[in-house]
Amino acid sequence: RLPFSLIAGPCQLESRDHALECAAAIKEIAGGLGIPVVFKASFDKANRTSISATRGVGLREALPVFAEIKESLGLPTLTDIHNADQCAPVAEVVDVLQIPAFLCRQTDLLVAAARTGAVINVKKGQFLAPWDMKNVLGKVVESGNPNVLLTERGASFGYNTLVSDMRALPIMAETGAPVVFDATHSVQQPGGLGTSSGGDRRMVAVLSRAAVAVGVAGLFMETHPDPDNTTSSDGPNMIPLKDLPALLAQLTALDRVIKTAPEAP
Amino acid sequence: RLPFSLIAGPCQLESRDHALECAAAIKEIAGGLGIPVVFKASFDKANRTSISATRGVGLREALPVFAEIKESLGLPTLTDIHNADQCAPVAEVVDVLQIPAFLCRQTDLLVAAARTGAVINVKKGQFLAPWDMKNVLGKVVESGNPNVLLTERGASFGYNTLVSDMRALPIMAETGAPVVFDATHSVQQPGGLGTSSGGDRRMVAVLSRAAVAVGVAGLFMETHPDPDNTTSSDGPNMIPLKDLPALLAQLTALDRVIKTAPEAP
Amino acid sequence: RLPFSLIAGPCQLESRDHALECAAAIKEIAGGLGIPVVFKASFDKANRTSISATRGVGLREALPVFAEIKESLGLPTLTDIHNADQCAPVAEVVDVLQIPAFLCRQTDLLVAAARTGAVINVKKGQFLAPWDMKNVLGKVVESGNPNVLLTERGASFGYNTLVSDMRALPIMAETGAPVVFDATHSVQQPGGLGTSSGGDRRMVAVLSRAAVAVGVAGLFMETHPDPDNTTSSDGPNMIPLKDLPALLAQLTALDRVIKTAPEAP
Amino acid sequence: RLPFSLIAGPCQLESRDHALECAAAIKEIAGGLGIPVVFKASFDKANRTSISATRGVGLREALPVFAEIKESLGLPTLTDIHNADQCAPVAEVVDVLQIPAFLCRQTDLLVAAARTGAVINVKKGQFLAPWDMKNVLGKVVESGNPNVLLTERGASFGYNTLVSDMRALPIMAETGAPVVFDATHSVQQPGGLGTSSGGDRRMVAVLSRAAVAVGVAGLFMETHPDPDNTTSSDGPNMIPLKDLPALLAQLTALDRVIKTAPEAP
Repeated sequence: RLPFSLIAGPCQLESRDHALECAAAIKEIAGGLGIPVVFKASFDKANRTSISATRGVGLREALPVFAEIKESLGLPTLTDIHNADQCAPVAEVVDVLQIPAFLCRQTDLLVAAARTGAVINVKKGQFLAPWDMKNVLGKVVESGNPNVLLTERGASFGYNTLVSDMRALPIMAETGAPVVFDATHSVQQPGGLGTSSGGDRRMVAVLSRAAVAVGVAGLFMETHPDPDNTTSSDGPNMIPLKDLPALLAQLTALDRVIKTAPEAP
Repeated sequence: RLPFSLIAGPCQLESRDHALECAAAIKEIAGGLGIPVVFKASFDKANRTSISATRGVGLREALPVFAEIKESLGLPTLTDIHNADQCAPVAEVVDVLQIPAFLCRQTDLLVAAARTGAVINVKKGQFLAPWDMKNVLGKVVESGNPNVLLTERGASFGYNTLVSDMRALPIMAETGAPVVFDATHSVQQPGGLGTSSGGDRRMVAVLSRAAVAVGVAGLFMETHPDPDNTTSSDGPNMIPLKDLPALLAQLTALDRVIKTAPEAP
Repeated sequence: RLPFSLIAGPCQLESRDHALECAAAIKEIAGGLGIPVVFKASFDKANRTSISATRGVGLREALPVFAEIKESLGLPTLTDIHNADQCAPVAEVVDVLQIPAFLCRQTDLLVAAARTGAVINVKKGQFLAPWDMKNVLGKVVESGNPNVLLTERGASFGYNTLVSDMRALPIMAETGAPVVFDATHSVQQPGGLGTSSGGDRRMVAVLSRAAVAVGVAGLFMETHPDPDNTTSSDGPNMIPLKDLPALLAQLTALDRVIKTAPEAP
Repeated sequence: RLPFSLIAGPCQLESRDHALECAAAIKEIAGGLGIPVVFKASFDKANRTSISATRGVGLREALPVFAEIKESLGLPTLTDIHNADQCAPVAEVVDVLQIPAFLCRQTDLLVAAARTGAVINVKKGQFLAPWDMKNVLGKVVESGNPNVLLTERGASFGYNTLVSDMRALPIMAETGAPVVFDATHSVQQPGGLGTSSGGDRRMVAVLSRAAVAVGVAGLFMETHPDPDNTTSSDGPNMIPLKDLPALLAQLTALDRVIKTAPEAP
């Protein structure tokens, strides 16, 4: 019944300056509302729709930036990893290793991530039922790491569409793991733009409100100073930094209602 | 930005005494929280899974009960109609005519209901996209009746399962019609018990919280003094009357946050 | 293991001359291939997407046309009915009463249709699992009429899309009822054109081939001399009469392989 | 318009003797029907539902077996790879590198596989629309390898269920790549047994017939002498070797109808 934490940042780590600017802005906005923050950015987009899409700055360039954000701003950091070899070096710098949804059943990756001792955030595959995540969780826990977050980010619903089943949140919470709602990938339209994924940013606030009212341990949100002018894959989903304060204020108010009221039936 | 109204009652109008008992209890619970109430009950279950399931007391027996509830308790009433002939006699007594989800595209039924001048509540078909409801709404409005509610009650998601897409609420609201969330039918597992529909009552609170936090004009909820001992079709979904006060208290608190705060982006 | 029958005709009964022309053409094409034919046309489109869409010539005008087709061409006929009152008068003239997919759980309609003694063709609702059709079948059979066809016409798959699950054909056949595949409605994109349904006619041959190879008692196909210039609702799905001979020739060849070969495991 | 090829073998490479026995049996069965065969087995099950499930003999032990099958039986071989490092050593022995469905968007894996020059078989992700596979294909082709097969193996349909959309076959064929239908994974019930995937073997023949009648370049089928007594993941789906002859005989007869007849519209 703790207030929710916020995992936020730009989709891609575009540059040192850009990442620091985003991290500082998020820290200030969330700090004013008493929301704990984990800074998120990707150093590599390993599964973009098209081969000609921008991949990212890479592991070598990204790690010092994460280190700097942690040191200068005091924020814990999160990034996603794509193969077992990346786990150990990333975990030396980054606090939370994230397993992408497509890879959530890759045993070797889960085990390698688990063994670093870092916190592991596993995104639920679009192709999985919420109750199937207990097996995914088991792969990490049985590798000796009990510090696992499970993240809902939508389920396949016909073609090029995801639907957020809010029942998934309490179902996954029954495992005992803290549950996070990814509010920006949930509004993706996978492959919806032909050679990239579309999205409907207006629905981020809608789904965030729903998830917080259901009850979550964390919210995941990609945000950017100028999401309509970026080559990163989630431009259509990310919310502008300037919209974050009003949205978070409303979400914390909802969170307080849910977590302070006597438990409803 | 008005507080939500509550459409509530037992699935079936089981008897005069039962209906009056339910209506009085709901009135007292909701009244204490300042929630406007419409009493709901069905006089006929016209599309049950199996032919041997209980149908209901019928139109003739039900209408005086609705009249008595309205007169003695001062509650407006709602019931569902299944063919065009029922519209006029029902509308003489009942305030809101409800079009069942399976029938939401039956032009003759919509037009006959519209012409009574009663308020019309159309449930969105499990097979329809939320944006398709503007055409359904058009059938009623173009028949001269602008008093229409649109109700979300889940979309088909694989077999024997519904999913509640919370994006449907703002999408339907763009039509200008008040949008209602049906929290008990949304947790149905259609046909899930072989010869009747199953359901997961524990999810009623979950989905209600989500819908209220997204923003609705109304909540629809079937409730019963003893839902596990009834022959009506929605036993597995209805929430016990005794659980209603705590749930509604939480929902009104969420509603207040959403509707009094400055509009989020 | 009989060869498949063909239920075919235009979506709407547009006029006497048009219906007779279609029926004669279908009879000649199918007759040359030894395929038994049932002529299909609708006298009323009772659930079109938009209220301003063309409804049809109506019951009174249509019945003599069905009678004439039966008498002059010797073809049995099929039409869809939408309320219980229509069943008896239609059954005096028409051989097969068809229950529309949206209405496949309306008990009164099923019972009224059953009691006429006509053959009943029930289309599986887009919202039903194939195994749920045994309950629908039971409503007709327990009303004293064992002559029931069950028709697959696609299941809801996300928004504005249907998918044809070929497993539905043998699952429904386990009931003992002859199973029909509706090859033209299965390619509908419900509501896909905003105020009318879209479709992808190129997929009619694809899905027909699949269904026949799986094994069906009947094929349902809407066909028209000029489907791109008609106001009836299934223009985008209907196949041009001129394409029917080649398609049926291929389908009968597939049917022969399946039904004459020793049964595969 | 060539006859279909068959990719077949046990789910897992259980042992040298088991693999050779399977390969010899498949060769004899398919050879008698004139069907070209590619032998398939997995050396590692990298994404099983539960961490305690059997993984496989591993790369080192498997490669000599593939080599022996190729040399002694003259069969080309196929296996699935899970990370970029495996591509080069596997391609030295195995003819076709298969990209698992969950990994079909992992750019590095696709590029590494492509660069070996081997034939690449990419399974369509359960979360992808068929038209999205042109981007996946592009990742391989633009890496210099035009020899790509695309395999349909079902799309997510609600929870724990796949549906085979037969329209996917011609849609993927529009890319120009040969299209394969995976008849045994398509009947999987992912996660359906709690800690492993279920399946419905009876539907293998149903879906195979449908796919062949639609038109495919290849069929993929897991088969085993005794599928109900194996620890490999696809026991519930694999078809017994003894059922293969009758099934393949029927499928070749269907294939001949489709590929020799004049093209239908």
